[in-house]
Amino acid sequence: MDESFFFPVILGTARQGRRSEPVARFVIDVLEGLEQKTDLVDVREFDLLATRQSDGRIEDYRRMIDKADGLIVVAPEYNHGYPGELKLLLDAGYDEYAHKPLGLVGVSAGGFGGARVVEQLRQVALGLRMIPIAHAVNVSRVKSLIDDNGNLSDEKVAEATEKMVHDMAFVAGAIGPARRNRENR
Amino acid sequence: MDESFFFPVILGTARQGRRSEPVARFVIDVLEGLEQKTDLVDVREFDLLATRQSDGRIEDYRRMIDKADGLIVVAPEYNHGYPGELKLLLDAGYDEYAHKPLGLVGVSAGGFGGARVVEQLRQVALGLRMIPIAHAVNVSRVKSLIDDNGNLSDEKVAEATEKMVHDMAFVAGAIGPARRNRENR
Amino acid sequence: MDESFFFPVILGTARQGRRSEPVARFVIDVLEGLEQKTDLVDVREFDLLATRQSDGRIEDYRRMIDKADGLIVVAPEYNHGYPGELKLLLDAGYDEYAHKPLGLVGVSAGGFGGARVVEQLRQVALGLRMIPIAHAVNVSRVKSLIDDNGNLSDEKVAEATEKMVHDMAFVAGAIGPARRNRENR
Amino acid sequence: MDESFFFPVILGTARQGRRSEPVARFVIDVLEGLEQKTDLVDVREFDLLATRQSDGRIEDYRRMIDKADGLIVVAPEYNHGYPGELKLLLDAGYDEYAHKPLGLVGVSAGGFGGARVVEQLRQVALGLRMIPIAHAVNVSRVKSLIDDNGNLSDEKVAEATEKMVHDMAFVAGAIGPARRNRENR
Repeated sequence: MDESFFFPVILGTARQGRRSEPVARFVIDVLEGLEQKTDLVDVREFDLLATRQSDGRIEDYRRMIDKADGLIVVAPEYNHGYPGELKLLLDAGYDEYAHKPLGLVGVSAGGFGGARVVEQLRQVALGLRMIPIAHAVNVSRVKSLIDDNGNLSDEKVAEATEKMVHDMAFVAGAIGPARRNRENR
Repeated sequence: MDESFFFPVILGTARQGRRSEPVARFVIDVLEGLEQKTDLVDVREFDLLATRQSDGRIEDYRRMIDKADGLIVVAPEYNHGYPGELKLLLDAGYDEYAHKPLGLVGVSAGGFGGARVVEQLRQVALGLRMIPIAHAVNVSRVKSLIDDNGNLSDEKVAEATEKMVHDMAFVAGAIGPARRNRENR
Repeated sequence: MDESFFFPVILGTARQGRRSEPVARFVIDVLEGLEQKTDLVDVREFDLLATRQSDGRIEDYRRMIDKADGLIVVAPEYNHGYPGELKLLLDAGYDEYAHKPLGLVGVSAGGFGGARVVEQLRQVALGLRMIPIAHAVNVSRVKSLIDDNGNLSDEKVAEATEKMVHDMAFVAGAIGPARRNRENR
Repeated sequence: MDESFFFPVILGTARQGRRSEPVARFVIDVLEGLEQKTDLVDVREFDLLATRQSDGRIEDYRRMIDKADGLIVVAPEYNHGYPGELKLLLDAGYDEYAHKPLGLVGVSAGGFGGARVVEQLRQVALGLRMIPIAHAVNVSRVKSLIDDNGNLSDEKVAEATEKMVHDMAFVAGAIGPARRNRENR
């Protein structure tokens, strides 16, 4: 790709045995293959229950999103919705998200590729004033895609991710300069 | 009301200064005025990040839901969706919810009474095989309804809650015996 | 099944070459195999643009729904939502739907079985005060399931439909008498 | 505003006595006050039931959308969803919508400003690969805003519309050249 952007990847579940982790690592491989900058944001690293004091990690997260050109969220579908720990993290920021493209990767043990969690997260993303990318990645029957070493490598997921990243770069490249221009006024 | 059911009330946010707390307490007052049994389930009491060991509270929660005839959730709307801590709690059970009526109380600082969080939670509720009650309670501009002692008392909210509880009782009274009959087979 | 209910099936698209038609016919076969009463409601038979005079068919539709114990809707997914002609028909009634179970059959040319149109229709169904059944039927890659004579016959679809109809009968059997009792007061 | 775009306004209901019509006319006034080009697209003018032959109007509609820099949809909320006639029109196109900003104006007889129809239409818009604008316009208690001559004029609606149009222009101005550049390759 012509231009290099910074697209952090949020791993949106903290569950034991989470199969979204190899998905997130694979998405990062695809991003690096396209010469994009990225970083893994693992919801496990945050202690977000609203009664607790922050230890500075949330501030770090917000600074990272502030520098990002866009965001990718890898989210398993739990009972037709999003994981609570993911929503706690997303709700911890606000202004940093504005006018940045959001790429969504739905993950499912079953056959629908997390299509429903993608739909709910699009509504949340617009609540946060992000620009949801129309092309999503849907990973169905995730267990069958993971090898004995716990790695995922799948041609279809790679292609869908590449297409999504191209769309994100298209939006980030067009909107980014206008956004920064407006912020600097 | 003719019959007395057990309808626990989940207070669905752990945030500091949460205005959904007086709403939940008021809903409990209305339930008791209608001679229904209830109990407050405060999401603050749970340590739900999926990496942590449970201390038995989740088991208590599941036992409570198992005994319940239905459930009421008081949920503020955060960025068009539900609070993460609420979803973590809801996702901690499954079979206990089946075929039980769910009453939803949306809470909003603004004017739309949490209409959007109600819509998203209905989809989650059906993922959990609950029966969402069509009549919801929408609390708009919640701050203006709370007095200096931190209490909420509002005629419209009372009326809407009563209507919702009547519908819950209608469904619980009709479905409950059939459900228990089926479970005992 | 022990009891026989009346569950009309709405064929929710009027498009040329609609593949939801063999799905609807197959659903009717399954219903009849379970000794349930049914009838096909084809959205093509209605001229619903709101500017037009009704010719009595809407009144017939409303009378049919009024007599029904529940409703099944077969709906293809168009651009993540429901067909317009289906919504025009659903919006033509109101009181007739109250407290009746709704079974949803999502149909898709692709792999997600209409999971998204099912989610949107559940929200509409609750707007109409129906009781959406948690167990839906999802028909993926519908084209591959239709034989040269234009018929669909699929074991998995049959099983899922049977499970859904059993749930509908469970709700209709429990709620129906209570509903009629309340209406007659 | 610095630049002038072409933002057609779809009036998304054909019902008799529709109160969304004065809303759509007012939105057009606001657009013209901001020196934007626009045109009213009335769903009443289309005969969209899928069984019917087109008379060329759909082709005209698609050509108009193709030339547009973005789109505004004025949609009343019917049973928590969108009007069928609006969906029939939206589904009649596809490629013309790609990467164009969509501004949504929800209209409601009640208090929630069509917040729910806005949420459902955002999902459809992403199915059509549009870019939904995060800032929506919500018109509550629409009847009370219309004067004896059938006109609507409201300061709050004007301000919200202006804000939305500014966001649409921001996206159209940034994305438009990149989009046309890509199409011409």
